Amino acid sequence: MTNPSIERVRSRFLLPTDKVYLDGNSLGPLTSEASEHLIEAISQQWGQDLVAAWNKHGWIDLPQTVGNQIAPIIGAHRGNVICCDSLSVNLFKALSAALEINNTRTRITVEAHQFPTDNYIASGLARLMGADRCQVKATDISKLTADDLSDTAVLALSHVDYKTGTLRDMPGITALAQEAGALVVWDLAHSAGVVELSLESAKVDFAVGCTYKFLNGGPGAPGFLFARAEHQLAQNPIPGWMGHARIFDFEPQYEPAKGIQRFLTGTQSVIALSAVAGALKLFEEVSVRDLRDVSLSLTRAFIARWKRSPLSAVSALLTPENDSQRGSHVSLALDDAFPISQALIDDGIIIDYREPNIVRFGFAPLYNTNADTERAMSALEAIVASRRYEAPKYQVKSTVT
Amino acid sequence: MTNPSIERVRSRFLLPTDKVYLDGNSLGPLTSEASEHLIEAISQQWGQDLVAAWNKHGWIDLPQTVGNQIAPIIGAHRGNVICCDSLSVNLFKALSAALEINNTRTRITVEAHQFPTDNYIASGLARLMGADRCQVKATDISKLTADDLSDTAVLALSHVDYKTGTLRDMPGITALAQEAGALVVWDLAHSAGVVELSLESAKVDFAVGCTYKFLNGGPGAPGFLFARAEHQLAQNPIPGWMGHARIFDFEPQYEPAKGIQRFLTGTQSVIALSAVAGALKLFEEVSVRDLRDVSLSLTRAFIARWKRSPLSAVSALLTPENDSQRGSHVSLALDDAFPISQALIDDGIIIDYREPNIVRFGFAPLYNTNADTERAMSALEAIVASRRYEAPKYQVKSTVT
Repeated sequence: MTNPSIERVRSRFLLPTDKVYLDGNSLGPLTSEASEHLIEAISQQWGQDLVAAWNKHGWIDLPQTVGNQIAPIIGAHRGNVICCDSLSVNLFKALSAALEINNTRTRITVEAHQFPTDNYIASGLARLMGADRCQVKATDISKLTADDLSDTAVLALSHVDYKTGTLRDMPGITALAQEAGALVVWDLAHSAGVVELSLESAKVDFAVGCTYKFLNGGPGAPGFLFARAEHQLAQNPIPGWMGHARIFDFEPQYEPAKGIQRFLTGTQSVIALSAVAGALKLFEEVSVRDLRDVSLSLTRAFIARWKRSPLSAVSALLTPENDSQRGSHVSLALDDAFPISQALIDDGIIIDYREPNIVRFGFAPLYNTNADTERAMSALEAIVASRRYEAPKYQVKSTVT
Repeated sequence: MTNPSIERVRSRFLLPTDKVYLDGNSLGPLTSEASEHLIEAISQQWGQDLVAAWNKHGWIDLPQTVGNQIAPIIGAHRGNVICCDSLSVNLFKALSAALEINNTRTRITVEAHQFPTDNYIASGLARLMGADRCQVKATDISKLTADDLSDTAVLALSHVDYKTGTLRDMPGITALAQEAGALVVWDLAHSAGVVELSLESAKVDFAVGCTYKFLNGGPGAPGFLFARAEHQLAQNPIPGWMGHARIFDFEPQYEPAKGIQRFLTGTQSVIALSAVAGALKLFEEVSVRDLRDVSLSLTRAFIARWKRSPLSAVSALLTPENDSQRGSHVSLALDDAFPISQALIDDGIIIDYREPNIVRFGFAPLYNTNADTERAMSALEAIVASRRYEAPKYQVKSTVT
């Protein structure tokens, strides 16, 4: 499947030519736009304009400016998104704000098997607030009922599961939770930029995400926080000077800024934000609907190819075949997944491994093509058939992201 | 005063040639080392090595690696400093950890007139924990006695006052507080890199700082956190996945890493940290003792010049004349300070204004010289004598950092 606007954008990705990059769900690649924004921010803005750049180049508003670039990608209104801190820190803020809003209840419900930082953060907040004011319950989201949420103040869950690639029904779960009297915080780490999102029409309360995956903002690039307009009266639990109503008056009393700015804490890296600002320029030239179509065609083709392959007898597909339940990565479970993943990387097929036996293939519609799905599956077939993964060099585990 | 090792380093600062830069206490300039590290991190590491760079280029350990670069600059042992998040977020973590350690007390004492984010953050933590578990008291640090701290769990204060440039007696105040049963968190924003510090020998409990001022790490560069070894058993109140004992095992239960790593929360910007890593290379070629000597000679010369100037009749020196009580900036209070500061900037003398009537002159021993002190004072004399600052263009206030 081809799409002219996406075809035009593909050439901006400065990808190494000898690799098939299927790990954009972990780290998006460098683009010419991100590179140009970085060089400008470093050499001209910091290097030549120095402290005057805070005004001259709008550094002081960058978290809001970049937030406004993210807004249309996730179906949010301008002014409801801010780009700052990490996803984890933003989740802490969103959960605390949700507990403050829904203050007749004290429970945070989390998805049991989601990316664990979400549950760690919820537990850390509960520990700080004390058991009488906050408790955390883990639940199996696939069996969630309104009854499970009858005493929940806020439900926190991932839109796309990091292991299986399962896409949750955001409007349905949000409505279910709200009918049961709970607020919802969605973690968009694996869906922003590849799945059509409409936070406003789904009446989502809060959402958090990162910009280093499918948004291509750079390694460890800042997170973002969405708060529905009516929730922007809640307090930031880490109220730093950048969220003050009058930052440069240095008043002894904290008075939160109006709107999304109150969710700022300290000073943000201008260089990191400049990379994100550059990377997001590409999203002005394509629609998320088109990206979703291409993403689905890539994952669909990959799954179909797997079904026709001898590999389907020795591996299990963890990712839903139903388009409406699938994000933008496909996960296979198989024996010897770790050494096999290392052999794939050695062959230039960049994927990642997840405990205990999963190989994840991430498909980024902005730059991956059907040829990539074929090359990846062929390489996997050859590695498994030849048992080449048994070589000692593929057995050694080190840190893998 | 000249120093050969500092003379050698001065040429690495990529400063605009038409300006006298006396605002390194707000934003340190770009250096060739920071620039080179950035280009390498962007083009090669991110651009070509992509996700493999997390291992290949040590991205995963960068917060600790950069922390170990900061350690000798602040008199800390290797392994006791981590570079991450913002100063404000790190202060939140340090205050919470200190309350946990000193758990028979519930009070945070803060300096009444210090940089206000410190007090906002303390109040935010108290609000989250509840009044029965944490309260905040503001105190006049210049009159601090042991009695004031008799029920204090943790005292939080700035090493150098952001307005006046007053340097506090770190060993003396730390000992006073600890004898009264309190822990101490020092904010090193205005002292790291220009004042000799010995956190370990002063038995400091916690410290936080930023890297974008005298450490030249770039606009909004990450903060750092120091925790004395024995305090590294305390919990991080925002426990994200990067502080887990086994990051990539994605375990449902949070188990903090041993040592300083537990104070990490989410993923950090590799690009922002790379700039800091580059900038800190310069500190391997000079000693902080030499930097302190040059800093004092610059501020001493500036103050002596002011005393001989007609300006001393129309302005007040807010900064202590006693070397042992002075950081690395000098503040003058005078009528019409705002338009005067704008006229100075227009003349290429880059300083900053602080409410209500303060002009701050920051002296960075790595690149400022005695010629800069003379040019700044001459320009100020000319502007005041000519009343040129009365021009309408100098009256308009916008954001100033």
